[in-house]
Amino acid sequence: MIKILGIDPGFATIGFGLIAADRQSIQMLRYGAITTPAGMDFSQRLNMIYDDMTELLTLAKPDAVAVEELFFNTNITTGIQVAHGRGVILLACRRQGIDLYEYTPSQVKQAVVGYGKAEKRQVMEMTKRILHLTETPRPDDAADGLALAVCHARSATSLLAGI
Amino acid sequence: MIKILGIDPGFATIGFGLIAADRQSIQMLRYGAITTPAGMDFSQRLNMIYDDMTELLTLAKPDAVAVEELFFNTNITTGIQVAHGRGVILLACRRQGIDLYEYTPSQVKQAVVGYGKAEKRQVMEMTKRILHLTETPRPDDAADGLALAVCHARSATSLLAGI
Repeated sequence: MIKILGIDPGFATIGFGLIAADRQSIQMLRYGAITTPAGMDFSQRLNMIYDDMTELLTLAKPDAVAVEELFFNTNITTGIQVAHGRGVILLACRRQGIDLYEYTPSQVKQAVVGYGKAEKRQVMEMTKRILHLTETPRPDDAADGLALAVCHARSATSLLAGI
Repeated sequence: MIKILGIDPGFATIGFGLIAADRQSIQMLRYGAITTPAGMDFSQRLNMIYDDMTELLTLAKPDAVAVEELFFNTNITTGIQVAHGRGVILLACRRQGIDLYEYTPSQVKQAVVGYGKAEKRQVMEMTKRILHLTETPRPDDAADGLALAVCHARSATSLLAGI
């Protein structure tokens, strides 16, 4: 079994999902979100993201981290903030010596649903089914984190079959 | 005298300029650039920025750091990279416990040239004159770093007069 931590990068909310997978099976271990308070100083929020990410990595001990690539939507201010946060997230992973993999949203859709232009709801539904979850993970960012972890499990060559 | 480190944030090249200032005088102490190699892995480059920034802060021991705010130009890919780098730069400052100040390009122009829409060349020329430099600092990023430091020296209330 290898442990994969999927991360939906952000600044106010960073979703994560931890799974264990091998050729035959896949299971959800944990999911959640790191959040930073809106009123807090910008660099202090970055510091909080770094500390919480480092703690999460230390506790979860993943063999690999899968992070979503950043695409800019209509809100450029949010995009800049998320890129700041993502820089700190990648740094925390690198400094823990954990292998990093990046996936585009359409790669995640392709891997989880089998269709690169699938809707967000379909990705959630398939993630739930693949991981045998009874409830829909909340917040959405955590569900995205789980989908990224599933995407890596299905994309990593050594794990390709069976799940 | 207080020491001010001005930083022009980036991903491939981060310019910096260190000055000392009080109410009567201002002087250049050091300038230069942190660079990361183009072929290197993305997160490794972030790690290099973090390490080099931390080393610079440890050596320079500034009382304050002035960092340029990020505005997106036409190249969105570069903008995303720079925002990743800037996140790591702010983190390094925060973790060294150094006071951080952010200035927009027009604030820098206003403080250095006295005109918020001044051209880049005018900013360089005035920075040179204010700091009594015989040569134009290279690379441009380092000159931008010095201009940011001068901007903070002129903006910080306790230093307002004289320089």
